[in-house]
Amino acid sequence: MADATPNRFWSDDLGALSPYVPGEQPKIDDLIKLNTNENPFGPSPRVIEAIRAAADDGLRLYPDPTSLALRECLAEYHGVMAEQVFVGNGSDEVLGFLFRALFQRGRPVVFPDITYSFYPVYCRLFGIEPRTVALDEELAVDVEAMCAIDPSSVGGVILPNPNAPTGRLLAIDQVERLAAHFADCAVVIDEAYVDFGGESAIGLIDSYPNLLVTQTLSKSRSLAGLRLGFAVGDAGLIEGLARVKDSFNSYPVDRLASAGAIAAYQDEAYFEQTRRAIIAMRDQLGADLEARGFEVLPSAANFLLARHAERGGASLAAGLRERRVIVRHFDRARIGDHLRITIGSEGQNAALLAALDEILVDG
Amino acid sequence: MADATPNRFWSDDLGALSPYVPGEQPKIDDLIKLNTNENPFGPSPRVIEAIRAAADDGLRLYPDPTSLALRECLAEYHGVMAEQVFVGNGSDEVLGFLFRALFQRGRPVVFPDITYSFYPVYCRLFGIEPRTVALDEELAVDVEAMCAIDPSSVGGVILPNPNAPTGRLLAIDQVERLAAHFADCAVVIDEAYVDFGGESAIGLIDSYPNLLVTQTLSKSRSLAGLRLGFAVGDAGLIEGLARVKDSFNSYPVDRLASAGAIAAYQDEAYFEQTRRAIIAMRDQLGADLEARGFEVLPSAANFLLARHAERGGASLAAGLRERRVIVRHFDRARIGDHLRITIGSEGQNAALLAALDEILVDG
Repeated sequence: MADATPNRFWSDDLGALSPYVPGEQPKIDDLIKLNTNENPFGPSPRVIEAIRAAADDGLRLYPDPTSLALRECLAEYHGVMAEQVFVGNGSDEVLGFLFRALFQRGRPVVFPDITYSFYPVYCRLFGIEPRTVALDEELAVDVEAMCAIDPSSVGGVILPNPNAPTGRLLAIDQVERLAAHFADCAVVIDEAYVDFGGESAIGLIDSYPNLLVTQTLSKSRSLAGLRLGFAVGDAGLIEGLARVKDSFNSYPVDRLASAGAIAAYQDEAYFEQTRRAIIAMRDQLGADLEARGFEVLPSAANFLLARHAERGGASLAAGLRERRVIVRHFDRARIGDHLRITIGSEGQNAALLAALDEILVDG
Repeated sequence: MADATPNRFWSDDLGALSPYVPGEQPKIDDLIKLNTNENPFGPSPRVIEAIRAAADDGLRLYPDPTSLALRECLAEYHGVMAEQVFVGNGSDEVLGFLFRALFQRGRPVVFPDITYSFYPVYCRLFGIEPRTVALDEELAVDVEAMCAIDPSSVGGVILPNPNAPTGRLLAIDQVERLAAHFADCAVVIDEAYVDFGGESAIGLIDSYPNLLVTQTLSKSRSLAGLRLGFAVGDAGLIEGLARVKDSFNSYPVDRLASAGAIAAYQDEAYFEQTRRAIIAMRDQLGADLEARGFEVLPSAANFLLARHAERGGASLAAGLRERRVIVRHFDRARIGDHLRITIGSEGQNAALLAALDEILVDG
């Protein structure tokens, strides 16, 4: 797309956008797919039941444009009010809405230099200047450096916790420090991976009317295929998101997605069992990678960022692909020798290690 | 929402947006709901089967971000190439993307004064000036007046065909006239209702690289609850839409929606049977309304716009609501005495007429 000849019917700035490039979704079935942080377990069987029931009833009718039942479910789960919850078509849509609704124009939005690569894409789409703050030497978010910024110069702050693609977690007191320092603009904590070892900042929203927390059902709830994300924060922030949503698409959350999402939150036992299994497999895979000469960043997510002591990231990724294992490699400074490896099933993780053993012996 | 106190964390122009107000989605079950142009028939049984199968398989994985299988299905159905098709989360999302991607800033976008009320909302969201052209005395789109506009002064053109909420259809040669007159900007024909009696402009896209046609699965395919819409046009226009989508949300179309939509296009017999039944019920309901003193606009849609000779629209709508029948009333000039009545099931239409009989006798 990036090198396309601009079409004469495009609006003026369309050629200047830099669309996000998602991780590959290969159409070949027998690949070991460890590149987009999907959950190796399927969703709860109750989710499937709920979707089947919803499919039988009412698809001819529009969904509730306010998604009230789902927002009430999420509110109860997280101990907040429904008016403190906004839901969207994946957390990416929620992020898109909040960049438009809550970040001030004319002042830069602050985020880490190595982070979710959709943030600069939103900046371009909405005409917002990014201001990146370098991760520290251990590739952790540098809260000290962020809090050295004059808050009055800033139009908003966003960061994932745990960060992606590093997996590194900030302690909750560090998140609170950011919310307090940047008290006059929206501070967004993108908790896509928080269920794999972090503490949510949702508990802080009543103290910080500028704090918005986003989560997704794509990772710990295993519903990437259903497209659901949400934000929790002060009712004023949530109303701002609703204003943009209602100026763009009245019904982004369909009936099946709503029904499936509610069922996911009604099966806490399944959620606990699967997320704990992934955490255990992550810790095991980290040890297995270290045993093979990798340096592995501490991760609170369902992936590991790892760098081999001797072998470059691009060639390792290519070698794995030859062996039908797909991981994510980012061709950029500081993490160009790393691989981001999703925690797969036990069989997938074993296949990854076997492929690495072949590659490392060959080398 | 409109009267909300702006929140200090909102971006500067957020309070100035005018969010769209969709037709009510009442949570009471026994209402006769004829207010949002839903299909009285459910979707094809094959759609339900396809969704149930898709729910059992792969929800843990992201969908294909390009929705290629669905785009190929739509392309084959409409006799175009997959690169001439864009799909989104309802046609509203597709409209949002095209306002952003294809309408030029700094020049007004032309549409009828009485039309889909989301168009001015998009204008506000994207900073586009609207230029409305009045419907003629019969409430038809005034192509003559539109073609009197200097095309070089215009940033884009959009109109539904058939128009909403009037239901009136433009003949395809009139659509072609608009595409030819405004040859240097995007001309969008919003065909949400075309299957109920219109001729699609898709057959013109190879002749007019500025022509984009949108359709939805919410009406004739009975899938309002699933959220699917699409656009067909020159590959350059489609690529422009994809650039905005990929700067906003990589995966707006979920796995179940894709599977259900493909199945809908694989059951042509069901589609033909249900849309013909709706057309027949529309013509019958129109005659029944005329017999009760209504003036009924000629409709090529799944609704009628009708005005009683003696009774005002607001009081009629209120009277119907007291009798548990909900229709749409627009509190605005020229159509303030009209009701927009969705064609329901035979039982719903009979209930509507019975309620009207009560109201008109009482008066």
